Amino acid sequence: MTYAISMDDIRSAAKQIEGAAVRTPLLEHPALNDAVGGRVFIKPENFQRVGAFKFRGAYNRLSRLGDVEKARGVVAFSSGNHAQGVAKAAQMLGIRATIVMPDDAPKLKLANTRGYGADVVLYDRYNEDREAVAKRVVGDSGATVVPPYNDRYIMAGQGTVGLEIAQDLQKLGLKPDQALINCGGGGLASGTFLALKDAFPVMRGYAVEPEEFDDVTRSLKSGVIEKVDFGARSVCDALLTPSAGDLTFPILRGLGIEGLTVSDAEAMDAVRYAAITLKLVAEPGGAASLAALMNGRVETRGKTTVIVLSGGNIEPEMLADCVGNVSESNAN
Amino acid sequence: MTYAISMDDIRSAAKQIEGAAVRTPLLEHPALNDAVGGRVFIKPENFQRVGAFKFRGAYNRLSRLGDVEKARGVVAFSSGNHAQGVAKAAQMLGIRATIVMPDDAPKLKLANTRGYGADVVLYDRYNEDREAVAKRVVGDSGATVVPPYNDRYIMAGQGTVGLEIAQDLQKLGLKPDQALINCGGGGLASGTFLALKDAFPVMRGYAVEPEEFDDVTRSLKSGVIEKVDFGARSVCDALLTPSAGDLTFPILRGLGIEGLTVSDAEAMDAVRYAAITLKLVAEPGGAASLAALMNGRVETRGKTTVIVLSGGNIEPEMLADCVGNVSESNAN
Repeated sequence: MTYAISMDDIRSAAKQIEGAAVRTPLLEHPALNDAVGGRVFIKPENFQRVGAFKFRGAYNRLSRLGDVEKARGVVAFSSGNHAQGVAKAAQMLGIRATIVMPDDAPKLKLANTRGYGADVVLYDRYNEDREAVAKRVVGDSGATVVPPYNDRYIMAGQGTVGLEIAQDLQKLGLKPDQALINCGGGGLASGTFLALKDAFPVMRGYAVEPEEFDDVTRSLKSGVIEKVDFGARSVCDALLTPSAGDLTFPILRGLGIEGLTVSDAEAMDAVRYAAITLKLVAEPGGAASLAALMNGRVETRGKTTVIVLSGGNIEPEMLADCVGNVSESNAN
Repeated sequence: MTYAISMDDIRSAAKQIEGAAVRTPLLEHPALNDAVGGRVFIKPENFQRVGAFKFRGAYNRLSRLGDVEKARGVVAFSSGNHAQGVAKAAQMLGIRATIVMPDDAPKLKLANTRGYGADVVLYDRYNEDREAVAKRVVGDSGATVVPPYNDRYIMAGQGTVGLEIAQDLQKLGLKPDQALINCGGGGLASGTFLALKDAFPVMRGYAVEPEEFDDVTRSLKSGVIEKVDFGARSVCDALLTPSAGDLTFPILRGLGIEGLTVSDAEAMDAVRYAAITLKLVAEPGGAASLAALMNGRVETRGKTTVIVLSGGNIEPEMLADCVGNVSESNAN
């Protein structure tokens, strides 16, 4: 089967982003291991530049533009982390960026995106189509639209997460039994699972979504790309995509990935656990896979499991709410 | 000059704690680099078992006890992180532990220490001498008192932090210009500076203390061990020791370490920055070196600086207070 991207694309992306992106480590915490009765390796992409994996794909995509394209600038539409990734990559590469963001995007993500020097255009997430808005913004400028996931360079860039995990596990002489990857449009999941399954063919893979955004879970069952219900809501603002892409979905399906969902309460609880016990700041969408583990969505006993903590751009007020009312022991 | 511990002791400790302690990574964050105009490497000991470096020394010390000593149990006196380190090491080694803790120790640290199966005895930090209380608790039991820092095995265990930093920097082909280490009684600082100065002799070293607990800073100037003023207070509960030890201080003095201090407000600000920008949960005492960097206590421009984020056991309520009233951009 031929997919939209290959391992060569991911390896090429790894070279392209070297020095620009952070080579994040692979963490293991005794407390989490004890809690699930197995070994868990965490890829902390909250340590990535802009606080989320999105920088990888954005930098890989933007750095491939020709001089004429670079001069015309780029436009992206995003709820926040892709916005920041594109804005930061554009800033580093000297490209003008316009970012179309939902007007209810986290203030922190809006502020950071502007902080990276991008022009921000707001739209109504629930009543306007963001791609249409983006096209209107592009107008006749000739700017390049940088899609958030359904793009070969973006997918290959996110796939470097999987490549690095595989390299680090191989150094330890370990083969994971399973990996759980947070999933919105499937950019991270498709690229990362491709790299992980290349290194560890018998490993099982799970795409983790918010309960009301279970389109990929349903799509993987039905075999066709399904959409989320109109009006769906979740606190996991990083994972609120209407459907997987026609480039990302065939990879997930072809690799035999299964879907899992977590509730908002479970995601928030995982944010709290990450902060208090693991000492890691995660955003709710970034902690979805951790939430799936903590709530027994997969068997972890005696197994080696990989999760990607995909982002840490949580509103300070929300982080304060999450951790503020804990009183129990966090013995680890 | 002959110090209380040698590099052989630290190398031996590294073997002793291998597999029991977490081999923490060395992190670098573009945002922090940009903020200080140089390269900063962070050793995140908040990822260590029990959330602080203290587990290293405690495990090294307790695992060296003979069978008779092990059967008689151990006693430790600590404001929190040493308590947790000894309790956890004792639990893993099947040794009974009694921990004498100040009655105003953070609830989280009290709860965790009990969670690791230790018996906790409370005392009044400001009106009772903790070593006297510990001796009363020991009584005729024959239990071994495990001091928090002035002990060769404890110091060598903490020194593995420096050994790991040196190994990781050497792998990167880098020589640090300076290192800043949080300092209470000097267990971490003496062991870690010994290992770092062994690998990088011309590197400068700074022990960082809370303003009102500047005894080591004064001691390094006067050449004799000075004490903190009675009634001194700080939010950095991990660093509230009355004076350096007669085993730790000669090492700091002999290596030419200098002292620096930070205010409580600066430490709390560093906790906030660590959480919001670096995505790391630190306790105030664990963030003292970061605070010193952020407030220009040393020249960082064009330099390579190492800091140890020595602990992350902050009360959830305090973390919520620290991060809850932030609204500015954290562009990174």
